[in-house]
Amino acid sequence: MLLLAGTAGVAFDIPIAVAITLLLAIVVISYRQTIHAYPNGGGSFTVASRNLGRTAGLIAAGSLMVDYLTTVAVSVTAGVAALIAFAPAINPYRVVIDVVAIVALIIINLRGVREAGAAFILPTYVFVISLAGLVLYAAFRVATGNPPHQLHTIPAASEGVSLFLVLRAFAGGCTAMTGVEAIANGVPAFEPPESRNAARTLTVLACLLGALFLGVALLGRSIGAVPNDQANVIAQIGQAVAPNSPLFYIVQISSAAILLLAANTSFNGFPRLAAVMSRDDYFPHQFTHRGLKLAYSNGILIIGGLAIVLVIVFGGTTHALIPLYAVGVFICFTLSQTGMVVHWLHSKERRRHMKLAVNAAGAVTTGVVAVIVASTKFLEGAWIVLVLVPLLSFSFWAIHRHYAHARRQLAVVPKPHRVGKQRVIVPVNDLNAATAAAVDYALSITTADRITAVHVKVDTDDKRDATLPERWKAWAPDVELRLVTSPYRELISPVIEVIDACHREGDATVTVVLPDILPKAWYQVLLHNQSELAFKLALLHHPGVVVTSVPFQLRE
Amino acid sequence: MLLLAGTAGVAFDIPIAVAITLLLAIVVISYRQTIHAYPNGGGSFTVASRNLGRTAGLIAAGSLMVDYLTTVAVSVTAGVAALIAFAPAINPYRVVIDVVAIVALIIINLRGVREAGAAFILPTYVFVISLAGLVLYAAFRVATGNPPHQLHTIPAASEGVSLFLVLRAFAGGCTAMTGVEAIANGVPAFEPPESRNAARTLTVLACLLGALFLGVALLGRSIGAVPNDQANVIAQIGQAVAPNSPLFYIVQISSAAILLLAANTSFNGFPRLAAVMSRDDYFPHQFTHRGLKLAYSNGILIIGGLAIVLVIVFGGTTHALIPLYAVGVFICFTLSQTGMVVHWLHSKERRRHMKLAVNAAGAVTTGVVAVIVASTKFLEGAWIVLVLVPLLSFSFWAIHRHYAHARRQLAVVPKPHRVGKQRVIVPVNDLNAATAAAVDYALSITTADRITAVHVKVDTDDKRDATLPERWKAWAPDVELRLVTSPYRELISPVIEVIDACHREGDATVTVVLPDILPKAWYQVLLHNQSELAFKLALLHHPGVVVTSVPFQLRE
Repeated sequence: MLLLAGTAGVAFDIPIAVAITLLLAIVVISYRQTIHAYPNGGGSFTVASRNLGRTAGLIAAGSLMVDYLTTVAVSVTAGVAALIAFAPAINPYRVVIDVVAIVALIIINLRGVREAGAAFILPTYVFVISLAGLVLYAAFRVATGNPPHQLHTIPAASEGVSLFLVLRAFAGGCTAMTGVEAIANGVPAFEPPESRNAARTLTVLACLLGALFLGVALLGRSIGAVPNDQANVIAQIGQAVAPNSPLFYIVQISSAAILLLAANTSFNGFPRLAAVMSRDDYFPHQFTHRGLKLAYSNGILIIGGLAIVLVIVFGGTTHALIPLYAVGVFICFTLSQTGMVVHWLHSKERRRHMKLAVNAAGAVTTGVVAVIVASTKFLEGAWIVLVLVPLLSFSFWAIHRHYAHARRQLAVVPKPHRVGKQRVIVPVNDLNAATAAAVDYALSITTADRITAVHVKVDTDDKRDATLPERWKAWAPDVELRLVTSPYRELISPVIEVIDACHREGDATVTVVLPDILPKAWYQVLLHNQSELAFKLALLHHPGVVVTSVPFQLRE
Repeated sequence: MLLLAGTAGVAFDIPIAVAITLLLAIVVISYRQTIHAYPNGGGSFTVASRNLGRTAGLIAAGSLMVDYLTTVAVSVTAGVAALIAFAPAINPYRVVIDVVAIVALIIINLRGVREAGAAFILPTYVFVISLAGLVLYAAFRVATGNPPHQLHTIPAASEGVSLFLVLRAFAGGCTAMTGVEAIANGVPAFEPPESRNAARTLTVLACLLGALFLGVALLGRSIGAVPNDQANVIAQIGQAVAPNSPLFYIVQISSAAILLLAANTSFNGFPRLAAVMSRDDYFPHQFTHRGLKLAYSNGILIIGGLAIVLVIVFGGTTHALIPLYAVGVFICFTLSQTGMVVHWLHSKERRRHMKLAVNAAGAVTTGVVAVIVASTKFLEGAWIVLVLVPLLSFSFWAIHRHYAHARRQLAVVPKPHRVGKQRVIVPVNDLNAATAAAVDYALSITTADRITAVHVKVDTDDKRDATLPERWKAWAPDVELRLVTSPYRELISPVIEVIDACHREGDATVTVVLPDILPKAWYQVLLHNQSELAFKLALLHHPGVVVTSVPFQLRE
């Protein structure tokens, strides 16, 4: 998280660093309250929709989805940037490496959440310990009178630049909040007692984060680090304090790994949110299903795929993605905190007034930040989010309405309706084994007098056409073969005319039995059944038609 | 065609220009003979396979396909380069403009061949007249003692450079041959008498081409034009002779148009070749079908799509594509001429010995050029063609073999086999209107005692599951509902177990009737039927299963 703040170009003026730490403290304290109030998972969607109503919930969900998506893009590009800092040769392949990293995250997560978590434990420890080591080593050098050399002169501060820097810092600092949100959303995944463990984890993370952040800010200021796309602040500190040492490389590599961990929170969070919303009919139902490994495969594939698109569109540069990222986070954070304020208003709990005050402070702070970030970064990309979030929220609502309508129509179950025998049409292009299989099948679902084989003459030169009626008669005298000419070489509309004639004769449902040649090898599929496919597509929405393919398996 | 020679970097030494003109003369004279010998279309594929056997024919077809493809890429990139010569601002969007041009060609050609031809008549006349005007105006300036100024000093000639330039010139000059091949292949499309008109067209084109080519070569030499990627020889002559005049712009714009005409020959040639091969079982059968506008839609889409890929991969630069282009043309030209030699050997025609000599000369000349170009340009891209052509030829052979096998298996038509009533399985997730429609359908194709509805319990929390058996009993007491539990949330394998049990009980074919919810709007499809699709895919290759979807249409 800290590294993101770095690449976002946080101004290393200590007051701003303190302000960010304070903002994080407010967020963490507020979210501790949310975790205890919603032990079954207290994501913004849940908190906002329970307390502020459906619209607020859907807006929170929309912002959250955008947030999860941009988190993947921002974290992965920043992680790759951490590697580029000591291996500039890979810079031209930045986007390719980003994509490979996201694909790796997809694969890891499809294998299941628990294993995915395990893959990130080691780098987390290594990062925390090595970064702490770097900070302590620098402090040691300062204490022993051998301070690291100054890199740049600090640029003269101006009013305009300060405001810009504060906003950049906020935008960067908020990255940590995705992790906070993920913990709040995933409370049930902790060991029991869930709420207490989740809250404890949150506090430990926040303290570590705060301490390291302030340490890096102090060091960054003392060496005059100015982050750029080639090397973030930590990389610059590393090069100044312990140039080309193993410590520098360990910090950079574990930075990259921990930024992938940040991306991974979205791979847990997004599919889980999608599943919750899908169960409530706000998202397509296929996101409810877990795969064999208990992972929500569809959600993982969607977020990974969209993140790849985002990274490619933005050319793999973190700073271009940050404006998109910051707005979503602050919108859903504001909604969640406002929801908590309403929660405490209706609560009868002890010390509810104090808790209400904490959440109100959080809501106001982050609400103000959301408005400032959205307006100042509007043209840099924030507008995309401000278009996307309402669009998503509307889609959720439309999906919900569609499912409600469908459910109402499906609920009307008529009594079983026993019609007579099926009317069956078999389009044939010649009398062959596949046609024979189709007619055999037709004979098993109805009687011979209800079957019509239809041959459409498209090619006037086809010699087989001339003998077809005779061969058919000899083969199955009781099954009618109807020959239809098609002057415009059109295969399908003559068959549809035959179907419509059956409908006019009173058959509500007509079954079209299509011979379907199954080749032995999958790639041979391209050599067959183009007309079968065309029939299926053409008849898909034709009322009163059931299409059945009867397979004929080729043996070689 | 001439412009391609330009951008290909033809050396403007007059002997080389004369050599190219001679080569073109040999090609055109040889092809005039082919046109008269094969009045039904004498493409390389036809001539080579009739006279040299199947393998030679397939190699010719493979090279021709590669040739058609690279013609599109080379011509379009060269055409766009002609526009860039007077509008350098569009250079960064080169690839995008190339792709747009190819898409336009696809659309024009899908609308039908005759209309496509009409779209190119005007630019052809404009180009020929304006280029002739440019040449004559330059001659006039020289005659009146006001010659155009020299652009560059001609670089000192060296042995190595000369050979390279000759090859480049040949590679460029051969572009004209795609047009020759297209005329030979398309003889039946001419007005009767077809052969004579086709031969006349060829001669007129060749004379125009030869005259303009020599004129441009002489002018190019006199002003010292050295073609590059920004401006080809004609553009440089235009700027020297009539700088920024309307004549210059007219020449450049009609150049671009006529290069699109060169690309268009492939859009006629490739689909026609694909159709011929498809009728002979050497290419997938779907390439036989003409669309409603009588265009071979699949062929047009395939060549357009592949050309777009090629242009993007090679970054829209003509000179990078030329090595790929030259080899294919010369291989199929050599095969076609050798085929004609064999043709005359077996012929009893008058003056056959003279004709044999002409074609033999053509075969030897182009054969030598093919070998030289392939070897010297091997690393520059010719290797791609030398890999691709055998691969394509092998594929044609494999496709032919597959169709022969399929035909043999389909020819064995068993007598109609009247089995008893179908065994029907209906997977249901709940009793609703869609399920009811599926069961109704099942009752229309078999009797109630042969139907088994299967409900797989995947979600232990689903409250509908508890009441389902009772509701089902009340709804259709004579249709069995089987409840199956699936501990791993797997929906499909429990149903497959039921199917396999039916097979063991002696039913050779089991019909699986799937309820299929059809939404009103197409985009709502994503919200339904995911499990229906999964069933279809899983059962696609399961022997003895016929899958039928029974649509239930949602009204809103």
